[in-house]
Amino acid sequence: MPRYRLTLEYDGRGFVGWQRQENGLGVQQALEDAIERFTGERLKVYGAGRTDSGVHALAQVAHFDLQQETPTERIRDAINAQVRPHPVSVLDATLVADDFNARTSARERAYLYRIVNRRAPVTFEHGLVWWVPVALDAAAMHEAAQTLIGRHDFSTFRARECQASSPTKTLDELTVETDGDEILFTVRARSFLHHQVRNIVGTLKWVGDGKWSAADVKAALEACDRRAGGPMAPADGLYLTGVTY
Amino acid sequence: MPRYRLTLEYDGRGFVGWQRQENGLGVQQALEDAIERFTGERLKVYGAGRTDSGVHALAQVAHFDLQQETPTERIRDAINAQVRPHPVSVLDATLVADDFNARTSARERAYLYRIVNRRAPVTFEHGLVWWVPVALDAAAMHEAAQTLIGRHDFSTFRARECQASSPTKTLDELTVETDGDEILFTVRARSFLHHQVRNIVGTLKWVGDGKWSAADVKAALEACDRRAGGPMAPADGLYLTGVTY
Repeated sequence: MPRYRLTLEYDGRGFVGWQRQENGLGVQQALEDAIERFTGERLKVYGAGRTDSGVHALAQVAHFDLQQETPTERIRDAINAQVRPHPVSVLDATLVADDFNARTSARERAYLYRIVNRRAPVTFEHGLVWWVPVALDAAAMHEAAQTLIGRHDFSTFRARECQASSPTKTLDELTVETDGDEILFTVRARSFLHHQVRNIVGTLKWVGDGKWSAADVKAALEACDRRAGGPMAPADGLYLTGVTY
Repeated sequence: MPRYRLTLEYDGRGFVGWQRQENGLGVQQALEDAIERFTGERLKVYGAGRTDSGVHALAQVAHFDLQQETPTERIRDAINAQVRPHPVSVLDATLVADDFNARTSARERAYLYRIVNRRAPVTFEHGLVWWVPVALDAAAMHEAAQTLIGRHDFSTFRARECQASSPTKTLDELTVETDGDEILFTVRARSFLHHQVRNIVGTLKWVGDGKWSAADVKAALEACDRRAGGPMAPADGLYLTGVTY
């Protein structure tokens, strides 16, 4: 059976996350429903990352198998037509080898976290950024972030419900930059613990507002205890921006 | 009475336009209601431009008079607190001279029009851009746009309900550029006819998709007749980006 790879953009405000939940529609199910409407086949779509409720994607990757080979432009356009009005779009569809697996073949995942740091509340981007009205020191956050780079036990930034077999992960990049009144976090790793990015951003925000130093972040990491870290940042500002294979 | 100037951002999706309409809330009324809640005064807020229903602002300017002098930070924060949940934000409030008038003192208004030009439907920006799935030639649109620069009778791009005393206006800038999959129109003039920017963008889109040439745009302008122009672009992509005094 031919296997297809999709590159997907979605607005997390319209879903309960990648996976179906009892309380609403997952991106995965919206795609499976759309594919069924144009192929008549009920199949399963596998994603590279299981984004949480409210988390967005600029380039999530997924795969699925069809009974028969179908032009990729047709797959892209038909899913986009059938999935409306849900806010998910197929940016690209390609035919891939049988052994391509969106989740297990991934070598790296990249996320972006967006803070809007200004006194005035956000208008257009409600639910798309974390609005922080107190002035944050982005340079201090960037400096503190560098203590987290590399291979560590990230238990301090791990959700209690995380199902990973080990708390040890390797963080390849954690850059904090400003762009106008935005503070942008770029994060890359082979894989992440549940809530790891949001727990890191929430902790670094304590550095940004002067509550913590870089040394405090390092001590929190070394404590290997969730209670030693800062609070979790909201889902609103988090975007899966790409997956490398 | 002290006069205050506000710089405002708003999401046009949340309003029927700047002015109150029978069918819903105008930005002006939302601000007047918010000011009344914190000062107890019922007053009138005057804007630089009467944006239509669905049109957005990144930096609309408005003025109003209070009975007594009030710290500008307090004005900004109190309006922002009282105007929720409507998607309008005071970016800045300043004390201005008695003769400052947001509308009549304005020397130039600037607008941005955003097209997203790609096959995949938009997700995050539904209502914030004009989604055009067929490939457009931005360079051809820019070239054709230059025929509209300067002082002309713009009747071809004027809404029937326009209340301006004359159809003659001076267009200072009309630039068409690309940024990734976006096509951005930057437009500046002292003032505009009703629907002028949207009628120009809709006409230039005909150039972008190969239906018209730059010479056709020039001929349409010279016809001085709305029926000679292209269709009006949707409100979704239009932003008032600034007012110069």
